[in-house]
Amino acid sequence: MNVNGEHYRTIWVSPDSAHEVQIIDQRRLPHRFVIETLCNADAAATAIRDMWVRGAGLIGATAGYGMALGALEAVTTRDFDAHMQGVAKTLIATRPTASNLEWAVKRVLTAMEKTESPTEKVDLAFREAGQIADDDAGWCRALGQHGLARIRKVATGKRDGEAVNILTHCNAGWLAFVDYGSATAPIYAAHDAGIPVHVWVDETRPRNQGASLTAWELAEHGVPYTLIPDNTGGHLMQHGMVDMVITGTDRVTRAGDVANKIGTYLKALAAHDTGIPFYVALPSSTFDWRIRDGLAEIPIEQRDGGEIRWLHGRTPEGTDSRILICREETPVANYGFDVTPARLVSALITERGICDANEAAILTLFPEHR
Amino acid sequence: MNVNGEHYRTIWVSPDSAHEVQIIDQRRLPHRFVIETLCNADAAATAIRDMWVRGAGLIGATAGYGMALGALEAVTTRDFDAHMQGVAKTLIATRPTASNLEWAVKRVLTAMEKTESPTEKVDLAFREAGQIADDDAGWCRALGQHGLARIRKVATGKRDGEAVNILTHCNAGWLAFVDYGSATAPIYAAHDAGIPVHVWVDETRPRNQGASLTAWELAEHGVPYTLIPDNTGGHLMQHGMVDMVITGTDRVTRAGDVANKIGTYLKALAAHDTGIPFYVALPSSTFDWRIRDGLAEIPIEQRDGGEIRWLHGRTPEGTDSRILICREETPVANYGFDVTPARLVSALITERGICDANEAAILTLFPEHR
Repeated sequence: MNVNGEHYRTIWVSPDSAHEVQIIDQRRLPHRFVIETLCNADAAATAIRDMWVRGAGLIGATAGYGMALGALEAVTTRDFDAHMQGVAKTLIATRPTASNLEWAVKRVLTAMEKTESPTEKVDLAFREAGQIADDDAGWCRALGQHGLARIRKVATGKRDGEAVNILTHCNAGWLAFVDYGSATAPIYAAHDAGIPVHVWVDETRPRNQGASLTAWELAEHGVPYTLIPDNTGGHLMQHGMVDMVITGTDRVTRAGDVANKIGTYLKALAAHDTGIPFYVALPSSTFDWRIRDGLAEIPIEQRDGGEIRWLHGRTPEGTDSRILICREETPVANYGFDVTPARLVSALITERGICDANEAAILTLFPEHR
Repeated sequence: MNVNGEHYRTIWVSPDSAHEVQIIDQRRLPHRFVIETLCNADAAATAIRDMWVRGAGLIGATAGYGMALGALEAVTTRDFDAHMQGVAKTLIATRPTASNLEWAVKRVLTAMEKTESPTEKVDLAFREAGQIADDDAGWCRALGQHGLARIRKVATGKRDGEAVNILTHCNAGWLAFVDYGSATAPIYAAHDAGIPVHVWVDETRPRNQGASLTAWELAEHGVPYTLIPDNTGGHLMQHGMVDMVITGTDRVTRAGDVANKIGTYLKALAAHDTGIPFYVALPSSTFDWRIRDGLAEIPIEQRDGGEIRWLHGRTPEGTDSRILICREETPVANYGFDVTPARLVSALITERGICDANEAAILTLFPEHR
């Protein structure tokens, strides 16, 4: 999507060198737009581990390019395959819970098997990494087109120029993928198609990805939005100020239960109570076909309490710093995600189309998982 | 309640002078415990206006003492009554929406009518102000005893030593009243009665009164608690980690609709969805007997957007400062309150007893408002 009028993806091969990769350092957003160059596999691993990049799709793409950069190093070693096994291990270990990591690493390893020549392996690795990124963008673009139809339908009931109001939680934007995003893909598609949209952006405590990432990317692409505390969405829905909710997800069971950033369940309840559609957008790689009961079977990560006690941002003097909002010894609980039961989900928006959140409907779109 | 082992109210006559009043400067919490002395009516007005004190009950008590301090000045003026009219006007203007302000000011004016002697008027004013404070504490204490019965009932179903888990939102604690608080009164009563309780404290964005006030007062009184982001309560309720929700309220209609700090509605929805009782605790002065439909008839204050963009706290260097969590030009919406429909409220806890949240049940406890 656009940044300051120029098109960007979240990861790309450097225009200066076909063997370097560039990313946006998302830790600096929203206050600074910093591009970093990754010259080797270790740099890619650091970028994932230290969250310069985050989001399932982007983590996968970065791991893919990390493998390609690793292949470049492997050419100069005595044992190409041994070096690549080490690179794969390092990359997979960066974020243990991200399933896209291993998937991307294996895709590149498999691609390189087509030749014995180390230099050809490098070419194949870069090509496969590029394909992983293109696939990710393609899936998001496709689900965006499906979701667009739902926004367009609401827009036809509006007066001329009146915006369709969409609430979203956390960042399931293009910054979490390679382009378009999941929850944001229908929004960008509608905006780019000339349909007036306005987005209510939950700030998404404790890490504030809504305030620092979603608000930033919508602003840069020119989509009207308003930042709100996580407490606000229910009130807006009660007063007819929200036409639909669209969130992303970290994992969806085959029965349609949705794990997403903590607080999503509360917004789904409010949407249900007020009769507003609650959509979850996802590339189908996010389905976990092995499980049905999200509440019982999806483990919820507990994160460091410092994320609650300390808030990061910019000081009045313009430097990056943090601030303590309670006493330092305050006991805190920091659950990263919650599960929204399928009964509260109006529909799932995938790259193959839109379906109800139940096993039969999901399997109609994805019959290979019957 | 206790601060560092010593009993405090939020406002009291100075032990050094019967004609000075002391308060806790709540702007400094949780990082500093600062007591301020109010020597005249202007100081009392400043304390209310600049939110050294806040909360309906405490605002009323401070206004009462402000009138008494004003009477002390009036003795030395040529026209006692004219001076008092000015003081009353100043105090009422400090926080235009707080109905307790005018109520307390009028109570002191009426009390002073019993005599023509200016010095006797001063005594009567201080006595009435003290009575206003005592009444507030008495109402909170009484509702706490009624609420205690509900906590005790849950406790009997627990294993030995297992705590009753109570979730609360914002600060409806003793800091918002003269003592005990509303939502916290049953909690303190249970704790003081030896019933193990544990409180989940919503941080309550944007102003974080949960993190800075509720967490502080529970810690000082020795009640176990855990601070959580506002997003977390639904997940806790889904997993059986909450036995009941108790919140305060800013206004309750005669039909039982509840206006309270923004985000309360979302917690009520989660409690309803998971079958957990959702209680609202209030001194009966909080009822608005003129209205029924909270969603339609209670105006919701919109506050300054700076509260969302900037967060206050302590820097790593130990100074008080603030931090910008989004770009400064970010559009924001800052609704102060939301309305929880009566259908989601399990019961109202008042100083006269506990009743269902519907007009018939409320009027059984308060027949004078039929």
